[in-house]
Amino acid sequence: MSEIKKVVLAYSGGLDTSVIVRWLQETYNCEVVTFTADIGQGEEVEPARAKAEALGVKEIYIDDLREEFVRDYVFPMFRANAIYEGEYLLGTSIARPLIAKRMIEIANEVGADAISHGATGKGNDQIRFELGAYALKPGVAVIAPWREWDLTSRETLMAYCAEHDIPVDFGGGKKKSPYSMDANLLHISYEGGILEDPYAEAEEDMWRWSVSPENAPDEPTYLEFTYKKGDIVAIDGKAMTPAEVLTYLNEVGNANGIGRLDIVENRYVGMKSRGCYETPGGTIMMPAHRAIESITLDREVAHMKDSMMPKYAELIYNGYWWSPERQMMQNLIDETQEVVNGEVRVKLYKGNVTVVGRKSEDSLFDENIATFEDDAGAYDQKDAAGFIKLNALRLRIAANKGRNIL
Amino acid sequence: MSEIKKVVLAYSGGLDTSVIVRWLQETYNCEVVTFTADIGQGEEVEPARAKAEALGVKEIYIDDLREEFVRDYVFPMFRANAIYEGEYLLGTSIARPLIAKRMIEIANEVGADAISHGATGKGNDQIRFELGAYALKPGVAVIAPWREWDLTSRETLMAYCAEHDIPVDFGGGKKKSPYSMDANLLHISYEGGILEDPYAEAEEDMWRWSVSPENAPDEPTYLEFTYKKGDIVAIDGKAMTPAEVLTYLNEVGNANGIGRLDIVENRYVGMKSRGCYETPGGTIMMPAHRAIESITLDREVAHMKDSMMPKYAELIYNGYWWSPERQMMQNLIDETQEVVNGEVRVKLYKGNVTVVGRKSEDSLFDENIATFEDDAGAYDQKDAAGFIKLNALRLRIAANKGRNIL
Amino acid sequence: MSEIKKVVLAYSGGLDTSVIVRWLQETYNCEVVTFTADIGQGEEVEPARAKAEALGVKEIYIDDLREEFVRDYVFPMFRANAIYEGEYLLGTSIARPLIAKRMIEIANEVGADAISHGATGKGNDQIRFELGAYALKPGVAVIAPWREWDLTSRETLMAYCAEHDIPVDFGGGKKKSPYSMDANLLHISYEGGILEDPYAEAEEDMWRWSVSPENAPDEPTYLEFTYKKGDIVAIDGKAMTPAEVLTYLNEVGNANGIGRLDIVENRYVGMKSRGCYETPGGTIMMPAHRAIESITLDREVAHMKDSMMPKYAELIYNGYWWSPERQMMQNLIDETQEVVNGEVRVKLYKGNVTVVGRKSEDSLFDENIATFEDDAGAYDQKDAAGFIKLNALRLRIAANKGRNIL
Amino acid sequence: MSEIKKVVLAYSGGLDTSVIVRWLQETYNCEVVTFTADIGQGEEVEPARAKAEALGVKEIYIDDLREEFVRDYVFPMFRANAIYEGEYLLGTSIARPLIAKRMIEIANEVGADAISHGATGKGNDQIRFELGAYALKPGVAVIAPWREWDLTSRETLMAYCAEHDIPVDFGGGKKKSPYSMDANLLHISYEGGILEDPYAEAEEDMWRWSVSPENAPDEPTYLEFTYKKGDIVAIDGKAMTPAEVLTYLNEVGNANGIGRLDIVENRYVGMKSRGCYETPGGTIMMPAHRAIESITLDREVAHMKDSMMPKYAELIYNGYWWSPERQMMQNLIDETQEVVNGEVRVKLYKGNVTVVGRKSEDSLFDENIATFEDDAGAYDQKDAAGFIKLNALRLRIAANKGRNIL
Repeated sequence: MSEIKKVVLAYSGGLDTSVIVRWLQETYNCEVVTFTADIGQGEEVEPARAKAEALGVKEIYIDDLREEFVRDYVFPMFRANAIYEGEYLLGTSIARPLIAKRMIEIANEVGADAISHGATGKGNDQIRFELGAYALKPGVAVIAPWREWDLTSRETLMAYCAEHDIPVDFGGGKKKSPYSMDANLLHISYEGGILEDPYAEAEEDMWRWSVSPENAPDEPTYLEFTYKKGDIVAIDGKAMTPAEVLTYLNEVGNANGIGRLDIVENRYVGMKSRGCYETPGGTIMMPAHRAIESITLDREVAHMKDSMMPKYAELIYNGYWWSPERQMMQNLIDETQEVVNGEVRVKLYKGNVTVVGRKSEDSLFDENIATFEDDAGAYDQKDAAGFIKLNALRLRIAANKGRNIL
Repeated sequence: MSEIKKVVLAYSGGLDTSVIVRWLQETYNCEVVTFTADIGQGEEVEPARAKAEALGVKEIYIDDLREEFVRDYVFPMFRANAIYEGEYLLGTSIARPLIAKRMIEIANEVGADAISHGATGKGNDQIRFELGAYALKPGVAVIAPWREWDLTSRETLMAYCAEHDIPVDFGGGKKKSPYSMDANLLHISYEGGILEDPYAEAEEDMWRWSVSPENAPDEPTYLEFTYKKGDIVAIDGKAMTPAEVLTYLNEVGNANGIGRLDIVENRYVGMKSRGCYETPGGTIMMPAHRAIESITLDREVAHMKDSMMPKYAELIYNGYWWSPERQMMQNLIDETQEVVNGEVRVKLYKGNVTVVGRKSEDSLFDENIATFEDDAGAYDQKDAAGFIKLNALRLRIAANKGRNIL
Repeated sequence: MSEIKKVVLAYSGGLDTSVIVRWLQETYNCEVVTFTADIGQGEEVEPARAKAEALGVKEIYIDDLREEFVRDYVFPMFRANAIYEGEYLLGTSIARPLIAKRMIEIANEVGADAISHGATGKGNDQIRFELGAYALKPGVAVIAPWREWDLTSRETLMAYCAEHDIPVDFGGGKKKSPYSMDANLLHISYEGGILEDPYAEAEEDMWRWSVSPENAPDEPTYLEFTYKKGDIVAIDGKAMTPAEVLTYLNEVGNANGIGRLDIVENRYVGMKSRGCYETPGGTIMMPAHRAIESITLDREVAHMKDSMMPKYAELIYNGYWWSPERQMMQNLIDETQEVVNGEVRVKLYKGNVTVVGRKSEDSLFDENIATFEDDAGAYDQKDAAGFIKLNALRLRIAANKGRNIL
Repeated sequence: MSEIKKVVLAYSGGLDTSVIVRWLQETYNCEVVTFTADIGQGEEVEPARAKAEALGVKEIYIDDLREEFVRDYVFPMFRANAIYEGEYLLGTSIARPLIAKRMIEIANEVGADAISHGATGKGNDQIRFELGAYALKPGVAVIAPWREWDLTSRETLMAYCAEHDIPVDFGGGKKKSPYSMDANLLHISYEGGILEDPYAEAEEDMWRWSVSPENAPDEPTYLEFTYKKGDIVAIDGKAMTPAEVLTYLNEVGNANGIGRLDIVENRYVGMKSRGCYETPGGTIMMPAHRAIESITLDREVAHMKDSMMPKYAELIYNGYWWSPERQMMQNLIDETQEVVNGEVRVKLYKGNVTVVGRKSEDSLFDENIATFEDDAGAYDQKDAAGFIKLNALRLRIAANKGRNIL
């Protein structure tokens, strides 16, 4: 164990990371700098200041990163239509690289030689934090208390608190939820508890953000999005910043019962895990973005994007946001979005998101050619015969040579 | 134009293909054999017999292909989780290779040297029919009247009918729909009419199968599927054949407002086209199949399937069902499904399909390892440190050498 | 057939394209503009002027495109390490988009409404010319005489010459080669003749450029390349333009018996075809470029490039140089080359190209870490245990659950 | 450290693994079972018996695995045309899974609870051994002395020998090579020493197997291979087993200066490493296999194989031979080889391998269609016009809409 002088801790203000502050001070005899970010998790971040002070922390960082989060992380990811394993919108994954980057920036500012976080050794988040940290500051030390200490049960943790004068209501006095949760502007997630049986249905009162489809309004809501370079820049004609867009869509989505998901996913560390997610705004943005792409992107460009997407999503899920390969794919994706401009209308109703219309100055939809009516010669149907004949040639040769395809 | 003696026509019994019968007889001076299939389009096929007879057809084939359609085409495709361009469940595409195969079988039985169909020269269906036909009978001639004749307007077609004594009510006296439609057990599609403006919302009375989510029951419906090798073999414990499964799911799906889709897609011939689809059963099966896979498939196998899926879907969309590359991918996909056994519970409610539980004898979900509680040493969290360090090594070396990732 | 007023013809000055001049004038009653390019085929282009004049052509374009060819087509392609079907360096394919682009530029300058070329209807070149032309000038008409006329045998062609006063020695009086050949600065190709039997060995006197390895010098030649952004900018310290680089490498390669290839390839039109190629310079550049990449590219970036390469090569082979998908891939590839700088030493000897050394300021090779000697703690071998354990976790869980991998 | 009772060690009989025997006995106080395999490394394996006995080993396994190695590992890999990073034929990688499998078989036979090997913590081989072991026996313990002990320099190792009565000439009295080497029937590799400078040319006397091209015979050697299902089953008409094939090709290859390679590769642990390889037989088999595929495989099947190959090669390089994803790809690859039958002629000359002919009963090469002569209507050149027109349609629409491709 090399000597650590100063460590930047991703600090939520909750009980666990408060214990970590003390444990770092004691175990590494080092100075702890706390960093608390508002990324839209829906809880006040300012109270973390007093708590950190009470633990003797001298350098305290509290940042509002919501705009940066949506603009530089969520939106770029949605340009790729990124979905992990066919279903997961990567709500947790996408927040980690921002935290990692900010921790390193602070480490550089305060001259810290280490970073620390409260993620467990079983999950993906430790990887996302640490790959980011190593990529941005290769000499940094990483301290992951959950992999090191022996406070592995609620009891030992409480005993540690008692012993070290850590007020247990640091957690805010809230009853400990049976679920492990994570929230940011893109989503809230639930793991553990009864969810550890993948056959057990999640209880209605687990969901914290959205009303159920059953309790959503009986009338549909229509929205119209304006896209510029693949991003929503206005809703119903009103210009909005990225964080405003997502905040607004979360509100409308939550009100309409949109964005609940219940899956079993494959973690990078090698185990399967069951998670439930609420991603209201993201669930609305996904088909809407596909809709604006559907009229503005060339077919082969769109297919190439689709063929790359699983890899891109995997990179983000696995924690490789800060990698040259993600960067390289992002540049490619961003370039395709130059022409992804226009309007998309969606209808929201009791959990459903339906695209009902799309239009664009950059549309490649050609009504004159596509029409079922007389096209005045825009398209010569006879061309299709040759097209099919040559596409069939290798199949015909093979059949003639006796190859059996049945 | 080589001399055609006998042609097998895919005959719906409708006006257009009735005109084709006569046109083939006149233009090619050849015998026409009609073939009408029940693939679950929801219309009687038997009436086609009298109509064909009235047109002087001597060899008339009327087949019920519903079981074969679902068992050998729809189910294999769903094992791949095939979706074209992120949204389309390939309802039309998947029926064509079966029609092509049956036409060729009949051609071989009756000694025909050609096949014919009523698909236009602008669409994908001509390609799907013809690639299949060429692959299965490389010497066959193909006659595609819409690419050859000059009956390109409603008026000229009607004039032809009058001239050739074809009763115009061959269409069944039904008012001509403003939409071009196609239906089978998997879906019904709509194109043309006001849909040619991609910004125009489809009218509620266009949809023929499903109730709208708004008009669906206020109570959710739960279903439990039993999977064997990736296919549903029972619902709520009741064994069903493939066609029974899909028929039942269509019923339940239609009743619950499930499966409507409105997209702009890229045709193989090179144009964009707007289509609306109802795919009630398929829309239910898709996430359910992913759910059973999520606990039974190895991560890397699942990811490999996902990375291949866009290509597989493209092959089917483009008409290459009867090709060695589709066959090769299918074998790979089918092999992965050996372990895809178990149960999935889904909840249907006003357009929503939600997976709420999954279990399997073949599950790879390991509760002992995944648990947030004490795992009794099943997983050593310390391993994660080395895992992350080595995965970060190339990133750290690059950073140390001055590469900038920001 | 729409009315053609003026057509730009890719004119070699040879007999076939001279016949085409006359045939176009007669058949389409239109003005013919000839375009002859020096792309390094090794024949004088200036004589084409007099021949065109003799045929009554008024607008004659003769261009030296060698620099543009290598700089904007060959070099970008080599940045991708593009190889078609594992072997073919795409020598013919890469010249066609340049010809297409120049034909369209000329068409725009002279106000032509059509282009024409001498490629047959069986090959890939017609596709490459025409896709390029359509992409760059969508309203252009294309006249491909070999697909239209009936001069399909040597005899009918000669008769046409006699009838139309076309001097047969337009071909230069050279004995007609038994092979169909194509040459440019990157390669020369041979098809037809005895090569139509894929089992027949090519005759030694077919090869026109290179000495055989048997006749190459007994002493090896060493070269050192300087790379900037993935391109060779100097050889043995001497700065060279792209065309100079390739010209020089062709010389050295030909002298050392380098670059012969004999393959059966799959054409885009659907048939297999046997071709023999000499690509001396390209055969040297390929492993050298991989060598400079091997020390400068990140592993995952390199692997992503490799996984895309077959698609990129297919695009070029099939004629989609002028497409948004090729453009998109090219941008991605070019970006990766920012760091591909440094030196590579190669040894040439009787057909062999061997990389013997590589170095770079941008190298990611870390001797301190890679060393078999004491690394002073640069790498902690214990990390590997956790790395392996977690990578094995899914395999162990599966084995524990009874999955059989043998 | 859980208690180990009996460990199976991959034992070469050399000094290092002899030290490991003693170190295991002392450190783990456990019984050591040695396993020595002949996989064609070119050294006697029987002498290992006496050495093991001298170290007090009671259970000694010495196996000749050459046939199994080539038949079940090398040949299946060559069916895939597997090349890592464009150059490396995976000679070391492919032997490790066999060793891993045999170690586990022995562990099961003798009731061992652990395996051990002499690979370092920096390399790929530890991963290949251990992933295989874990996949085949998930509860097995793995002891990797190089990651655990402190004998990290030559001096400490020698001191350990002196202290523990291990005769230093266990290494056979051979002067310690400056290179780290590995050999089997497929190849011999060199790392370390002066190779740690990637710019330094390998010395001629490093190469142990092959003559240099300069010293190879002045006359070419021709060979004709007979393929069955993608494997060579006879050479020049003489039936051979897989190991006989490779042994023979190594002989001929080595005599003709074939198969030397000098590269920098990316290890799975994250560092770049320079390696030199001799792979005489493999270097001959690679283009020959591609040649027989070139006439027997469908184009799209071949392209799909090519697009998967980099991933397949990466799997083997990274140690995932014993994984469901490798198995899945292998099945797919093997299926494609059903038709890969026929003959290939190659010419070997001073380092060059040139395919000069190929033929097959299963050939898809159609001379009637491919011919440059009159094809009697086998192919209608007019079809190409429609083929090109429709393939160009999306490009023309885009250009008409103002998209700029230049």
